[in-house]
Amino acid sequence: MRVSIVGASGYTGGELLRLLLFHPQVEVAQVTSEHHAGEYVHHQHPNLRKRTQLQFTSRDTLEPCDVLFLALPHGEAQKSIDHYMSLAPKIVDLSADFRLKDTALYKKWYGEAHKAPQYLGKFVYGLPELQREAMKTANYISGVGCNATVSNLALLPLVKANLIDLSKPIIVDIKTGSSEGGASVNAGSHHPEKSHSVRAYAPTGHRHTAEVIQELGLKDVHLSMTAVDLVRGVLGAAHGRRFERHITTNRSCGS
Amino acid sequence: MRVSIVGASGYTGGELLRLLLFHPQVEVAQVTSEHHAGEYVHHQHPNLRKRTQLQFTSRDTLEPCDVLFLALPHGEAQKSIDHYMSLAPKIVDLSADFRLKDTALYKKWYGEAHKAPQYLGKFVYGLPELQREAMKTANYISGVGCNATVSNLALLPLVKANLIDLSKPIIVDIKTGSSEGGASVNAGSHHPEKSHSVRAYAPTGHRHTAEVIQELGLKDVHLSMTAVDLVRGVLGAAHGRRFERHITTNRSCGS
Amino acid sequence: MRVSIVGASGYTGGELLRLLLFHPQVEVAQVTSEHHAGEYVHHQHPNLRKRTQLQFTSRDTLEPCDVLFLALPHGEAQKSIDHYMSLAPKIVDLSADFRLKDTALYKKWYGEAHKAPQYLGKFVYGLPELQREAMKTANYISGVGCNATVSNLALLPLVKANLIDLSKPIIVDIKTGSSEGGASVNAGSHHPEKSHSVRAYAPTGHRHTAEVIQELGLKDVHLSMTAVDLVRGVLGAAHGRRFERHITTNRSCGS
Amino acid sequence: MRVSIVGASGYTGGELLRLLLFHPQVEVAQVTSEHHAGEYVHHQHPNLRKRTQLQFTSRDTLEPCDVLFLALPHGEAQKSIDHYMSLAPKIVDLSADFRLKDTALYKKWYGEAHKAPQYLGKFVYGLPELQREAMKTANYISGVGCNATVSNLALLPLVKANLIDLSKPIIVDIKTGSSEGGASVNAGSHHPEKSHSVRAYAPTGHRHTAEVIQELGLKDVHLSMTAVDLVRGVLGAAHGRRFERHITTNRSCGS
Repeated sequence: MRVSIVGASGYTGGELLRLLLFHPQVEVAQVTSEHHAGEYVHHQHPNLRKRTQLQFTSRDTLEPCDVLFLALPHGEAQKSIDHYMSLAPKIVDLSADFRLKDTALYKKWYGEAHKAPQYLGKFVYGLPELQREAMKTANYISGVGCNATVSNLALLPLVKANLIDLSKPIIVDIKTGSSEGGASVNAGSHHPEKSHSVRAYAPTGHRHTAEVIQELGLKDVHLSMTAVDLVRGVLGAAHGRRFERHITTNRSCGS
Repeated sequence: MRVSIVGASGYTGGELLRLLLFHPQVEVAQVTSEHHAGEYVHHQHPNLRKRTQLQFTSRDTLEPCDVLFLALPHGEAQKSIDHYMSLAPKIVDLSADFRLKDTALYKKWYGEAHKAPQYLGKFVYGLPELQREAMKTANYISGVGCNATVSNLALLPLVKANLIDLSKPIIVDIKTGSSEGGASVNAGSHHPEKSHSVRAYAPTGHRHTAEVIQELGLKDVHLSMTAVDLVRGVLGAAHGRRFERHITTNRSCGS
Repeated sequence: MRVSIVGASGYTGGELLRLLLFHPQVEVAQVTSEHHAGEYVHHQHPNLRKRTQLQFTSRDTLEPCDVLFLALPHGEAQKSIDHYMSLAPKIVDLSADFRLKDTALYKKWYGEAHKAPQYLGKFVYGLPELQREAMKTANYISGVGCNATVSNLALLPLVKANLIDLSKPIIVDIKTGSSEGGASVNAGSHHPEKSHSVRAYAPTGHRHTAEVIQELGLKDVHLSMTAVDLVRGVLGAAHGRRFERHITTNRSCGS
Repeated sequence: MRVSIVGASGYTGGELLRLLLFHPQVEVAQVTSEHHAGEYVHHQHPNLRKRTQLQFTSRDTLEPCDVLFLALPHGEAQKSIDHYMSLAPKIVDLSADFRLKDTALYKKWYGEAHKAPQYLGKFVYGLPELQREAMKTANYISGVGCNATVSNLALLPLVKANLIDLSKPIIVDIKTGSSEGGASVNAGSHHPEKSHSVRAYAPTGHRHTAEVIQELGLKDVHLSMTAVDLVRGVLGAAHGRRFERHITTNRSCGS
């Protein structure tokens, strides 16, 4: 199976590439990066040294393949989704562009209209614990938000077993590592500033909240984000109610 | 002013000693440690090297002084409080023994009857933001819980300004450093295990909750504890409601 | 092939157990721990949860097997090596007991006479880069010191290619993580003290020096140890001379 | 005493500013930053919030003052030193521009000719342990390199007491924190990459070597640099010889 990745120089693309390179039924055809076109991928992903001689290519040179992964920054995939769909029968988009089904929900949480709303309903939300059967036959799958996932996995067993009162507020307090912010350097990721720190960066209003609303059917759920001195992984504590009893459940995810 | 410290070999006693040694109106008379009696204090607190030639003494040799600080493990001060009161007109207890006023509240959160209940009402809860005036004239003051303090300071302005609905649950999600656990070595504080970790250790039921109930008059407040890879300090996110609007406020404290 | 481990509750034994459990040709027969006899191994090694239902047994119950690994604290294997040899035709000792060939070298660096000197020459020094062929047919193999290994691997290519002047002093300055110190809790491994620290703990005289002397035939080599805020791994910088030119080479090892 | 700082937005300038603001005999007149001109200094240095209402100004607006500190990137001070000298009778340059006395030594270690060689001999090398008396009356003082300082302080007592053989190579193996790299964001300082790492970045040839050569009169000294997971501070292990005996001494410096 020939697989290509659009946007393979970041952390998401790099981890995906690592998994695909070791998959016995996958041949990685092309990996794109506009900034690093022509370079060996192990310049950006030193852990892949001696594992592959692949070089990044530009998006313009993309050829048809069996499965196309999109690992672009938010907002990019929706701009050119028709083009990508013309290149491969199966697409997995790892950005936030096609996670939500509802254009109004998208607009509320992302602050602007979606550029390809006709496709919003076509992507399966790719969390196996929720959509395993649908994913098996889907042509279009969306990756899922890291903070949404820790929330969905923490709450899913409680919601399924009717152990939590959905009419009461549910708060998911999430502690995140720095890899979640991606490979781009910024002032907040500068080691002397970030080390030994614990910082609330989105106490309310985090966009991934929309994915929990959609997938678990919750109305009154709040994600609250704190960055801790950790690289990979995320831990969420979900706080809710049942029959006037306070419930807290914790869930961690690798990332 | 002659001041002594009972239990000065731990982190609380060591920080207190540092503050007192640099205080222009204080003479530190005695500092006790049963395990380290006879040793120079800078063996346990290397940051005090060349600042003092004090040696730890045993509790048995305590002499009368003007102010006596107690920095003992929980449960110890209440066993001998009469004795300590006979030694000094003013006592500051840094343990959890005399923070609560109500014997029933104490029993509920500490799981056993208090050993000196007659003194519970005699100590002023030593958070200046709440009890500044009372502290000025008090003879007996209790130190305050670190996690209680981050909660009280986060919620105090909202409660004072009537900005939070006290009939709805309030959750304080607290991220703590490792110094909070004290100087005693244990499996959970072993560097190879603790480093790079984020761990929920008291998702509900933390004892400091009682201090928030008492001091802010809250009925439905829940502290939830997570240990992060940090040494000093604690960050709390308090989640509440007002008129159906979700509120989150963050507060950090040094420790 | 039936394999047992003596002393499987520490870090060395635990990592070994993980490797053996996933080895297609190995059946792990017994794993011993005097302190944890009767407990499931995943209580000590949570990463093995759901991978094995093995329980620790006492050393007294050890049965014959094909290969016996010894992962005991230094000094223990040499006390009972005859007994262990009676239980298995092949032994791999992961402690420092059988790394050195020479009783005088042992005494110099370990400060006391070896308790089973007749076996010192019988163990192959188990560094594949140096002894690959001998290891293939050996019945008795010794594991190697972590700091010795980073030194040997750094220096080996220079020594082989005659690029370093062996008559001049060679210094290997080694930065180590905390897992090297093992699973036992101690004051130096207490997270609040150890975090954010960098500490010289054996500026000269580290015992692993003897393994570099023996394996590379060096006369004037010095290991100098610094503990850094790292869990796994070790980085060594080897400083030497060739024809009046200063050479530094760096080598890292996982651990 | 009116004091100004040229280049006050970085780590060096910020720490200097903090010290000066709390100095009882200093009035901080102006602090410059080309990128942040017009902003309050506490935007860049949040630890100074409520300590000063100073705003950064552009270098062009600099007025005469009593002491002028230069905290510019390497190479900048030497371009305009005449101008700065016209503004203040006393100058302290914290960059590497005026640490060396000898133009040839400068060229060898910095790879290019100095732009104001006539002033090289006019600055006192500002390490009090070496130049305390000269500093007291100097008009022009140079700050000192962090890695040079840990080396000079480690070696000074040995050199003074003639305890080290200066004809033999001396190696200073230095472990550095990330603040040494300054406030500018770069790929190497990205938290997800830098955390939990230990990396040799200048195994030989570090520029600060020149300051050790000059100040201690050493001929065969080698600084070797390793970055560890630390923010502030640096630890150096100096390895030398005396009468065929190997000597290692460690020295740490805050930074």
